[in-house]
Amino acid sequence: MEYIFSDRVQSLKPSAIREIFKYAADPSVVSLSAGNPAPEAFPVKEIAEISQRIFAENPIAALQYSVTEGYTPLRNWLTDYMKNKHNVGSESDDILITSGAQQVMDLVSKAVLNEGDVVICENPSFIGSLNTFRSYNARLVGVTVEPDGMNIEQLEDVLKNEPKAKFIYTIPNFQNPSGVTMSLAKRKAVYELAKKYGVLIIEDNPYGDLRYSGEFLPSIKTFDTDGIVIYSGSFSKVISPGMRVGYGIAPKPIIQKMVVCKQGQDVHTNIWSQLVCYEFLTKYDFDKHLENLRNIYRKKANFAMDLLDKYLLPRITYNRIDGGLFIWCDLPENVDVNKFCMDAVQNKVCVVPGTAFMANESDVTHSFRINFSTPTDEQLEKGIKILSTINF
Amino acid sequence: MEYIFSDRVQSLKPSAIREIFKYAADPSVVSLSAGNPAPEAFPVKEIAEISQRIFAENPIAALQYSVTEGYTPLRNWLTDYMKNKHNVGSESDDILITSGAQQVMDLVSKAVLNEGDVVICENPSFIGSLNTFRSYNARLVGVTVEPDGMNIEQLEDVLKNEPKAKFIYTIPNFQNPSGVTMSLAKRKAVYELAKKYGVLIIEDNPYGDLRYSGEFLPSIKTFDTDGIVIYSGSFSKVISPGMRVGYGIAPKPIIQKMVVCKQGQDVHTNIWSQLVCYEFLTKYDFDKHLENLRNIYRKKANFAMDLLDKYLLPRITYNRIDGGLFIWCDLPENVDVNKFCMDAVQNKVCVVPGTAFMANESDVTHSFRINFSTPTDEQLEKGIKILSTINF
Repeated sequence: MEYIFSDRVQSLKPSAIREIFKYAADPSVVSLSAGNPAPEAFPVKEIAEISQRIFAENPIAALQYSVTEGYTPLRNWLTDYMKNKHNVGSESDDILITSGAQQVMDLVSKAVLNEGDVVICENPSFIGSLNTFRSYNARLVGVTVEPDGMNIEQLEDVLKNEPKAKFIYTIPNFQNPSGVTMSLAKRKAVYELAKKYGVLIIEDNPYGDLRYSGEFLPSIKTFDTDGIVIYSGSFSKVISPGMRVGYGIAPKPIIQKMVVCKQGQDVHTNIWSQLVCYEFLTKYDFDKHLENLRNIYRKKANFAMDLLDKYLLPRITYNRIDGGLFIWCDLPENVDVNKFCMDAVQNKVCVVPGTAFMANESDVTHSFRINFSTPTDEQLEKGIKILSTINF
Repeated sequence: MEYIFSDRVQSLKPSAIREIFKYAADPSVVSLSAGNPAPEAFPVKEIAEISQRIFAENPIAALQYSVTEGYTPLRNWLTDYMKNKHNVGSESDDILITSGAQQVMDLVSKAVLNEGDVVICENPSFIGSLNTFRSYNARLVGVTVEPDGMNIEQLEDVLKNEPKAKFIYTIPNFQNPSGVTMSLAKRKAVYELAKKYGVLIIEDNPYGDLRYSGEFLPSIKTFDTDGIVIYSGSFSKVISPGMRVGYGIAPKPIIQKMVVCKQGQDVHTNIWSQLVCYEFLTKYDFDKHLENLRNIYRKKANFAMDLLDKYLLPRITYNRIDGGLFIWCDLPENVDVNKFCMDAVQNKVCVVPGTAFMANESDVTHSFRINFSTPTDEQLEKGIKILSTINF
């Protein structure tokens, strides 16, 4: 039979980085291309304890069907925590527990995007989210990321010229892949522009808790007196990504539609994971755990930046980071980044070419992304040394 | 802000049964409306053991990011098991682990349905799947369910008259909600018609292992020499629904598209659950466990049918069942089933009106569904006694 696929998936092409990742599967290749939390960052002992307790005390609650909205005590705790600690969420908002934050992007897209609608995103931006938007046949329009976040004039130009724009997608803290943190002034400007032009904002904040230097900045959601911001949080980087637990905090009418969509997608999020997160957040010292994570990643990030200074500067430059898991490295403008990355993988180190993160294939970039959370120190040094030997 | 939702979710109306379920939240109401496995059917001890072992031996594997396709040993084991035990799957097929079987419906819909395409379903059918198809703006066309499955002439008429039909959705074993099992002759006829008219089949089989009487019948997927059947399996009824682990076995090009869609939806299925399922299937006696489940449900089903015979016959009739979790009860044709169910819930027993399961709101039914797996024997007897007192 000849299979005829839907328009939306016909337009999804295999990613240009697939070819590179094929090489990366070779165990002799040093991978600086993933985005996995460091193995030492998982609260293994605590999760094991909690899990054992759940199965001893109330196993059916961890195994039976549950509600689509999410485990009620977890929702209530998160609502209070996000309000009290980060001023995120209001009486007009509701919270939905999702199967990872990726599902927030999917459910919002499903709820608001019609074919041909426009999503405005940072350029570069997280490929997983971009692909989700593409899978709903949205047209992506990228706005250049500067060292303090989106170029605001460019954003306003896009808003003026794209009447079908539905939302702005932003990762304000330690953006993936650029590592950039949006300034407070720009956070406010993005909010005001979204309000002025009647579009929503998805504020994706998976790395916010992983700030290891510099000053904490408030979320865009804290300005949201107009009910236009969908805040997306995740436990993937602070507890465990394999559990797939994230959450969305958004105006009630939007959460209601997301719930209906989630019902048809996976009924509810794995309930054991939700119980484990709830117990970990409420019966252990979460703040101390976060401090521990920040110490782990600060050390790893500084080690990575020292290696970059030692081996790559000045041939390859980069932006120093204050948090998150990624460093964005810039090649000279005459260098083809795809060729550089292909040469690198053939020399046994895998990094991701910036082209993978661009809103459109034709958008030009001379940068690549390295991840320092997954490799060991030895692997990282070996990988960066190899990068220094690539000819261009 | 006034929220403008996508066309696809604007057409999703709150279900007519919501009003009834509101009453059912009252703990004094006996609920015969759910579809939860019996609490005594969960392999609690084994899951606790496995979980403890995982966290002692290889915790990072249960907590780290994993691959979209699913845990490779589980995929391999299931591929062999389904082939050897049920003759399901071939060299042309692949397997995808999903976050519950509901996600199979969603991913297939996303991969093949364009706006205005037609899905042919049994009438009545499982509301969860119907709502998923609706959420992709498909038009549902129902085919009457007879005591041996779909009316085949009607199915051919629909196929002739609906050139935009993309797939036939069927639950051949102990169908939800009708309890009907499709005969072997009709399974073959449905396959031949799908082939003749160039449409796919989704064969949804969550209850197949729960046959407690009568003869085992082969899956439609066993005839699939033409690569037109997507088989959907689930561990929700045989291990745990809260874990959200299901799977699709389908022609490779279809699985490839489903993988791309799943990547954007939830990246991968909770990996702890996949490890638990794999360990349970391979290190414990799964056949014996299934036999135990069949004994539990056989007893409960017979108890339920005895109560129906005693209290409801001949005013309310029903079809005897050989498996599954539901019994479909028929009211006389002059009775308004929605009013009956509303009267019932006001008298403290909740059953689901057949109207909830129809392909279209205008489709007429005089039936309601009862579930016997979730309530205790006492609750079941109390509920059915109340039903016998409802005037009509």
